[in-house]
Amino acid sequence: MEKLVHLDQTNTNSYSSITKNGSQGQPRAGILGGGQLGRMLLQAAANYPVETFVMENDPDCPSAHLCHHFTKGDITNFNDVYNFGKGLDLLTIEIESVNEDALEKLQQEGVKIYPHPSALRIIKDKILQKQFYKDSEIPTSDFIITQNKEELLQQEHFLPAVHKLGKGGYDGKGVQIIETKADFEKGFNGPAVLEKMVAIKKEIAVMIAINDKGDIAIYPAVDMVFDQKLNLLDYQLSPAELSEKTMWKVEAVAMKVVNGLKSPGIFAVELFVDLNDQVFVNETAPRVHNSGHHTIEANYSSQFDMLWRVMLGYPLGCTEHILPAAIVNLVGAEGFSGPAVYEGLDEIMKLENVFVHIYGKKQTKPGRKMGHVTILSKEKQELIHQATRIKNNLIVKSHS
Amino acid sequence: MEKLVHLDQTNTNSYSSITKNGSQGQPRAGILGGGQLGRMLLQAAANYPVETFVMENDPDCPSAHLCHHFTKGDITNFNDVYNFGKGLDLLTIEIESVNEDALEKLQQEGVKIYPHPSALRIIKDKILQKQFYKDSEIPTSDFIITQNKEELLQQEHFLPAVHKLGKGGYDGKGVQIIETKADFEKGFNGPAVLEKMVAIKKEIAVMIAINDKGDIAIYPAVDMVFDQKLNLLDYQLSPAELSEKTMWKVEAVAMKVVNGLKSPGIFAVELFVDLNDQVFVNETAPRVHNSGHHTIEANYSSQFDMLWRVMLGYPLGCTEHILPAAIVNLVGAEGFSGPAVYEGLDEIMKLENVFVHIYGKKQTKPGRKMGHVTILSKEKQELIHQATRIKNNLIVKSHS
Repeated sequence: MEKLVHLDQTNTNSYSSITKNGSQGQPRAGILGGGQLGRMLLQAAANYPVETFVMENDPDCPSAHLCHHFTKGDITNFNDVYNFGKGLDLLTIEIESVNEDALEKLQQEGVKIYPHPSALRIIKDKILQKQFYKDSEIPTSDFIITQNKEELLQQEHFLPAVHKLGKGGYDGKGVQIIETKADFEKGFNGPAVLEKMVAIKKEIAVMIAINDKGDIAIYPAVDMVFDQKLNLLDYQLSPAELSEKTMWKVEAVAMKVVNGLKSPGIFAVELFVDLNDQVFVNETAPRVHNSGHHTIEANYSSQFDMLWRVMLGYPLGCTEHILPAAIVNLVGAEGFSGPAVYEGLDEIMKLENVFVHIYGKKQTKPGRKMGHVTILSKEKQELIHQATRIKNNLIVKSHS
Repeated sequence: MEKLVHLDQTNTNSYSSITKNGSQGQPRAGILGGGQLGRMLLQAAANYPVETFVMENDPDCPSAHLCHHFTKGDITNFNDVYNFGKGLDLLTIEIESVNEDALEKLQQEGVKIYPHPSALRIIKDKILQKQFYKDSEIPTSDFIITQNKEELLQQEHFLPAVHKLGKGGYDGKGVQIIETKADFEKGFNGPAVLEKMVAIKKEIAVMIAINDKGDIAIYPAVDMVFDQKLNLLDYQLSPAELSEKTMWKVEAVAMKVVNGLKSPGIFAVELFVDLNDQVFVNETAPRVHNSGHHTIEANYSSQFDMLWRVMLGYPLGCTEHILPAAIVNLVGAEGFSGPAVYEGLDEIMKLENVFVHIYGKKQTKPGRKMGHVTILSKEKQELIHQATRIKNNLIVKSHS
């Protein structure tokens, strides 16, 4: 009587016989990638009539059990992505490293892709992304493109700077801080971009949604505080504390990015505010994003709800916050690898204004994103106090 | 490459080879019934490390795709329930009409059952339930037990009253209002309870959770406004407008019910407040309940979150409301049966403080619960205004 999960590796053409717009009269929506972003997207999808599909290599991934149809496949492989997508009405991503050639072909054949492959191409390559900001007159830090280590070595005059690999970086990998000549050895011997370091006062993120008609919804900006070591978000506060003038700049710049990308979807625009209150775009992600997780509880329409609204053709949601919020990321503690144990969870779950999200990953390892905790409070001091408490007391370890 | 759903009808012993506490080191939790309550339970489950199992006859039910393991089976059948439950760590219900003999056996064998089968037995039979209130000195309307129509006909002196079938009533079925002798023909010719009609000022519902240790969490009471025709909840307001004294009575009575049932779990206690501000228990449901749906957005810990906290042994959540709320149920419109179409959905989704939950049922029919909409606002008048607007403009129809 049990539903058995049967992964038929040979069937790469499984949707060809199914008509468009769902066997149940519901739109058929695919997600490439099955991590926590997919998981939270699927939690939100269950508020709407939509048939969901996920492709990911690991059948035990956080999203696999929350969709109608799971496909084991490689999101970087043309055939896998094409075959997964070709019977669907619409398709989105939860990670940039997908095969964009397949997405382009699917788009030509009428599948709606969020974001458009053209926007994804720009964003996936940090060189193209930086060039896009420059060409679009979007303020961003100065940069030099380096094709190899040799070219990098000639840029001593440009230091201090940050060296970013053009393709393949993720979650702090593919990024090196080059403060002095001595750091050159950490640089990349391949196409990369060397970005002049900004004297940062604040790091800010803005989530923006744009639908097929071009309607835009912008969430209140958030303050991001980073862990220098892992370059993973440490905690963040919503809304950001900014002067009205800086807020306007931030919003105007973020809107310019999204308009320039010419693609519907949802975008996380990360910005620096420098010591002179100048605003620079750092990077953009063309998808739901860690910096928007608080919107699940803290805003009327969450980033996940919003993306479904965009993709299903519903009106855009309300981005206003219900209450100010903080997020703490739960990352695997140093020195622990193996089945995850959440030390201190009981104590944290006693806090009345705290919302725990554990991603259900079987294995922890140092720095792995295992969950997040959202805190709601009218008082900023209370948010920071609770964030610190959670950060110090909720530790992801392993028995082994 | 697609995950195929293979329903193996002959395998009734599918969990015997799997060890306790989950193949993934996560507790294994089962839900009997796969409707919208299961669906929302599973949305909430994805915040925690838990492996989920659902049993239900219809593999297209609203919950089937959101669990780790779906089993097609009859929740009223002893063998189906026993075989489903026997490899699990814990088990809950989303509907009362389950086989409680199987649950009792499972409980004896160490599976944790929420609610305990003993409490379920009392509640499932409206005669036993009424007797329980009386024996426990819980205020409830006067009643007479009638074994058949003949006995009913002798109770003219007791009118006006409500006749309720002992077993098998649900969502307004199995309930008849007997105002005068002429209504006797509508009464039931089987074990039933005739309840003296109360001069109702208000109908109130209170959600209460109680864990294995006996800790209790009580949600703010809500005002319920019913559709007389279908006896389905029309709209409800949270928190209820009650004098402090009446609120105390309501909470004390609801606590007494839950303490008397001697079972962990979550309970919806429905009460009447009469014209003299006397409080009477009407009925209790030993599970998540329609009258608690607003808690998803309006309270820190939702009723679904709360039941997981109870079952997984976490601390109880905070029941306080974040903002006042109203709920409107979306039921299938009269005259329409077939694939569901949600007329007016676009207009409603434009409202900024409105949260739509569509249950994903393929077919609508008159009176069927197809979804609900939650409204948040500080202003009670705004809640009522929006509830009325939604009720009048969002209609579940069918093309055919």
